[in-house]
Amino acid sequence: MVVADNLQIIRESIRRAVEERNPAPIRELVSACVRAGAEAIDVNPGPLKREPEKKMAFLVGAVREVTDLPLLIDTANPRAVSAGLAAAGDGTIVNGFSLEPEKLREILPLAVSREADIIGFLLRPDGHVPMDAEERLEVAGRLYDAFRLAGGDPARLVVDPVVVPLAWSNGNFQAAEVLAVIRHLPDLLGFPVRTIAGLSNLTSGATNHRRRRLIERAYAAMLAAAGLSMVLVDAIDSETVSIVQASRRLLSQKIFSWEEIP
Amino acid sequence: MVVADNLQIIRESIRRAVEERNPAPIRELVSACVRAGAEAIDVNPGPLKREPEKKMAFLVGAVREVTDLPLLIDTANPRAVSAGLAAAGDGTIVNGFSLEPEKLREILPLAVSREADIIGFLLRPDGHVPMDAEERLEVAGRLYDAFRLAGGDPARLVVDPVVVPLAWSNGNFQAAEVLAVIRHLPDLLGFPVRTIAGLSNLTSGATNHRRRRLIERAYAAMLAAAGLSMVLVDAIDSETVSIVQASRRLLSQKIFSWEEIP
Repeated sequence: MVVADNLQIIRESIRRAVEERNPAPIRELVSACVRAGAEAIDVNPGPLKREPEKKMAFLVGAVREVTDLPLLIDTANPRAVSAGLAAAGDGTIVNGFSLEPEKLREILPLAVSREADIIGFLLRPDGHVPMDAEERLEVAGRLYDAFRLAGGDPARLVVDPVVVPLAWSNGNFQAAEVLAVIRHLPDLLGFPVRTIAGLSNLTSGATNHRRRRLIERAYAAMLAAAGLSMVLVDAIDSETVSIVQASRRLLSQKIFSWEEIP
Repeated sequence: MVVADNLQIIRESIRRAVEERNPAPIRELVSACVRAGAEAIDVNPGPLKREPEKKMAFLVGAVREVTDLPLLIDTANPRAVSAGLAAAGDGTIVNGFSLEPEKLREILPLAVSREADIIGFLLRPDGHVPMDAEERLEVAGRLYDAFRLAGGDPARLVVDPVVVPLAWSNGNFQAAEVLAVIRHLPDLLGFPVRTIAGLSNLTSGATNHRRRRLIERAYAAMLAAAGLSMVLVDAIDSETVSIVQASRRLLSQKIFSWEEIP
């Protein structure tokens, strides 16, 4: 599933649209994502220190003017998560929680009580990234236990193994470890748990556009082959979306048909 | 390693060049492959019913006028294999043998006696394609035994798991099984055996150029992530070559550097 990561408050046009309560730029951006093949929209309003409920309701409302696609409510602010869940309707995914105590305490129960899907990040309780696949799988076990303890339905969990920038000193090692984690998670947890990964994290800091896209496309196919369920991408980059769609079709159980390739 | 699959006798310009002993079209094609990033050249002269030695020596000679890259001698004709090995020099790879009796009898000993690398295809003794990963791995065990019995050095073996067209009724199942075989072969054989796959086999029969390329690029990255050592590609398609190079760089053990991405 292609999730557009384009709707972010750090984009200046979106920041201003939210401040001015002007839905037009939001509608325009989301429409472009939908046309390009997005199957879900990540709504990232940042921490929302002032008026979290109003701003989140406005953002979701603007998106809902142009699409009924599932939304990911991507904020660490519990009040904004609540408002987003209320405004977005069925199929909404809370993005997300981790072993960080405030996330377990404030975000996870919101998703459980509303029977919403929720993304669980494989991060240490202090918010740092695990050092390898083994530590990620250990974190996944603890995260799953915490999720169940809070009353979560396993079918509602989506695990994010946390892609890190290649620019980190061990970035390519981590990229390979993330693929291994995605392959092994269903066996570890004992059910076909869904997974999600953010492709643009991998190339964060890259200055050359062409190189960035090449690496994202290659890694997108690798993630698909490892069994990834959802990928967060710049949905406006149609070639990357096409590679994701081609990868999915290539690996599906259905009889292959060239007509279904974008 | 990117192996150009472009030098084939079924290409009309090459067929005529061989008939007329005109090296110019061969030089031109191979130069284009080298410029595009090819790291080895597959030389496929077909069965060569007439004058196998002379034609193969001519082909290899024409290639050697423009590059010292390793060559793959891609013919089922033992006399042509012999001539190709003599003409091409060190680093040449015989492409290849399988459990088919005539290949074991006539091709494998040529490579072993000349201490050349050789590609072993995971095909049944009757030349048919195994039905799944399990049968391929079973064939790989028997192929390896036959290779060792003939005196082959494990470091000289390159295994081709045999990519089949997606257009086959179980084509996408087979594509996934090939990835699994590449992942499991080193464990099965007990050493880091090299592997090779032909990307264009996957899309054989496709009529839409864009779709064909999308699928090839996605699968190229998946093959790389599975651990493939060499990939046979249309080297003139620079975007596919770039994806292969980006995949390799992404997965290498060396510290990642954006400058090394094409």
